[in-house]
Amino acid sequence: MTTAAPATAAALAEVRRAFPPERLVSGDPEKLEAYGRDESDLGVFPPDVAVLVESAEDVRTVFAIASRHRVPVVPVAARSGKSGGSLALRGGIAVSTERMNRILEVSPGDLVARVEPGVILAALQAEVERHGLFYPPDPNSLELCTLGGNVAENAGGPRALKYGVTREYVLGLTVVVPTGEILRLGHRSIKGVAGYDLTGLLVGSEGTLGIVTEVMVKLLPRPRHVATALVAFASVDAAARAVTRILTSGVIPRCLELMDDVALAAAAKTSPYRFPADAGAALILETDGNDEEQVFAELVRAAELVREDASGDVVVAQGEAQRRDVWETRRYLSVNLKTLHPLKLSEDVAVPRSRIPEMVAAAKAIGVRHGFTVATYGHAGDGNLHCNVLFDHPEERPRVDAAVGEILRAAVDLGGTITGEHGVGLAKRDFLEYEQGAEVVALERRIKAVFDPLGILNPGKIFPER
Amino acid sequence: MTTAAPATAAALAEVRRAFPPERLVSGDPEKLEAYGRDESDLGVFPPDVAVLVESAEDVRTVFAIASRHRVPVVPVAARSGKSGGSLALRGGIAVSTERMNRILEVSPGDLVARVEPGVILAALQAEVERHGLFYPPDPNSLELCTLGGNVAENAGGPRALKYGVTREYVLGLTVVVPTGEILRLGHRSIKGVAGYDLTGLLVGSEGTLGIVTEVMVKLLPRPRHVATALVAFASVDAAARAVTRILTSGVIPRCLELMDDVALAAAAKTSPYRFPADAGAALILETDGNDEEQVFAELVRAAELVREDASGDVVVAQGEAQRRDVWETRRYLSVNLKTLHPLKLSEDVAVPRSRIPEMVAAAKAIGVRHGFTVATYGHAGDGNLHCNVLFDHPEERPRVDAAVGEILRAAVDLGGTITGEHGVGLAKRDFLEYEQGAEVVALERRIKAVFDPLGILNPGKIFPER
Repeated sequence: MTTAAPATAAALAEVRRAFPPERLVSGDPEKLEAYGRDESDLGVFPPDVAVLVESAEDVRTVFAIASRHRVPVVPVAARSGKSGGSLALRGGIAVSTERMNRILEVSPGDLVARVEPGVILAALQAEVERHGLFYPPDPNSLELCTLGGNVAENAGGPRALKYGVTREYVLGLTVVVPTGEILRLGHRSIKGVAGYDLTGLLVGSEGTLGIVTEVMVKLLPRPRHVATALVAFASVDAAARAVTRILTSGVIPRCLELMDDVALAAAAKTSPYRFPADAGAALILETDGNDEEQVFAELVRAAELVREDASGDVVVAQGEAQRRDVWETRRYLSVNLKTLHPLKLSEDVAVPRSRIPEMVAAAKAIGVRHGFTVATYGHAGDGNLHCNVLFDHPEERPRVDAAVGEILRAAVDLGGTITGEHGVGLAKRDFLEYEQGAEVVALERRIKAVFDPLGILNPGKIFPER
Repeated sequence: MTTAAPATAAALAEVRRAFPPERLVSGDPEKLEAYGRDESDLGVFPPDVAVLVESAEDVRTVFAIASRHRVPVVPVAARSGKSGGSLALRGGIAVSTERMNRILEVSPGDLVARVEPGVILAALQAEVERHGLFYPPDPNSLELCTLGGNVAENAGGPRALKYGVTREYVLGLTVVVPTGEILRLGHRSIKGVAGYDLTGLLVGSEGTLGIVTEVMVKLLPRPRHVATALVAFASVDAAARAVTRILTSGVIPRCLELMDDVALAAAAKTSPYRFPADAGAALILETDGNDEEQVFAELVRAAELVREDASGDVVVAQGEAQRRDVWETRRYLSVNLKTLHPLKLSEDVAVPRSRIPEMVAAAKAIGVRHGFTVATYGHAGDGNLHCNVLFDHPEERPRVDAAVGEILRAAVDLGGTITGEHGVGLAKRDFLEYEQGAEVVALERRIKAVFDPLGILNPGKIFPER
């Protein structure tokens, strides 16, 4: 640790005095490296020390030390992020909330839950379901990711189509800001408009404005029945037509997931379903509600609406096991794509619904131009598409990055955004201005400075380097 | 107009040079007074001039003049606000968006609409319904209020229970900030997490951060069927128990409206329904969906759940005319209460659902202590209650204000908020710190200063005077 800059060395000494050794990760490069990785493929950026905080006071202590020495503080949660938000780009002190993993309260009367930020999403969902309740956001990483990370990234998932994203469920936050205040934002009531919506501002701020130490979320009653179907189409265009037909008909499925031809070819390798030979796309449709007959009727109605565009039969899952099969076809896509090419860079654009076919075609064409296969899948109902550039050798990475850049710009040009749910982080900071313009980014930087005047919290994220 | 301060006089001269006379209201005290009133009963605060803007460029021109002369700029829309947000507290230039009333686009393919801020909410709803679509927010003033005002106040309404408030529907905004930039925030895609959620920050900022010149909203397919019922209860406690029973059963009605005994007595005067003599509260229940049978079945299910708490029969509206009768019982409450006492001050607290009976009881007790009758009604499903202090003479106002202050503090003490949907404005600025604490308010002031460093935009609103 003698390689640290003088300021960092002095800060580390203070951190070691402030926290007992069992709450620190330091010295051991291998352990520190684990705190410097995520699911973004952007490289390893270990912190100089990781503090396993147990309270808002602990976070405040870290900020005080970091402020004195001008050392970066980087919040880390499950390290399952896709945009590099938790990477300690310039070293410094990682604040890990992994020990703050208690579900503090589930209130069926108020339909709210209070949790610490280190609670794993699947654990919260299981707990509220025991009370007959429901917490809808469902990012693919739900078995790993934490509520703190979900709040930082404003996590989505397939069910966002009907139920919305994390932001729609966060009623209140306790957050420690770099200047040391422990702020209680929001309220336990479902509604409330007093003052500016700071809770909403913190959600999706990617750990750049403050570190969350408690989250209050809104719950719903758990829908008692779910029905799932899988439909193949000759082309993405046909599938996109089907999506529009369903949504404008008045049926709002809880999920409407799209896979393009490449994704389908990869999925077909392990899927128990035999897709028609001419299938160029597939949709997973899911409806839910309290009345079994009605849920099924709604699915059938959607299936009828898409039949004329479909290629082959609509497969309606019979029972829980078949439902799981359908979802595993989708969930293991990311893994299965690697059987086509060992490496991939996954993108996360969102476009207006009507532009889905254009976006899928644009991503494919960009891939062809750079010599890569692109597989697109994602949440077609809300236009959030994951375009995956597949490749074979790490040396191809600069060309892959160039292709990804074009894909991001294409999404913006179609009226969409560079990120639907993964965040900007380190991965896309150089594209933020292309989407928002210099004036909006300048305003965001000024808001960042209100919370973090010294620039110690998660530096180098969201905003391009100057 | 010679009474204006020198800065104002110079600014007015510039305004007159910048805009043609037919786009200005100035000189005529009566006409200016109309721009200085709203529905808050806080008094008349006319601007020195009102500019009928037609574009973002016009707003920028006003800001430039106001900045040079340090003169207040106050955005006004329909002047139907309940918290004094559009009152020109210190005179200055009112910016009226009444001429910017075009619906620019309704896109069934993307399920979005783009409108100018002066569009009346009911006009937008009628237009999207012609396309089979649905824009859910439904404040009581929907025939008067504008989208610009709805965005400023984050307007709610009964349907917020199932569908959420304005914030959940605003995808993007064009906004002019006091420093003159015309910012395009958000995106046309349903999802998007790039940068900070400035769109969300602007929604509910009560015209203190910028003036909105275009709004892009998300639409839903229109639910084809609606069913409505009216149920009486012996007490608010019994009604509140029924609310909890319904919501925890898994039925989410689109509305669940509560009236207490006083509200009911007032409503009974014109309502076509004969409430049981012992009725101490009533609920309006409404379900919606695409399948008529299912919508009705859901209503019946809810009705069965509440039967054991109810007093008398559940009245299910047969047909559109009876539905309208039920809603008019609720909608004319505000007017009917004036038959009990000619004056009233209406409050807008929200509490966690389980605290509804305590809140209603607290408001009543506070009224008794100060010698007033309090009538409470509102959106019980989400805990948003309108507590109305009834009185007879304007001279009683100081005592009424004292009672209202106690009601607001009681809501906060129960874990709720001073405003569920009407905003802080001028009416409740002195209570903001009680709810949020000095540190959060200080942070909000610093955010305000980022947008409005000279403090020219809507001064004196939201934040207590220093």
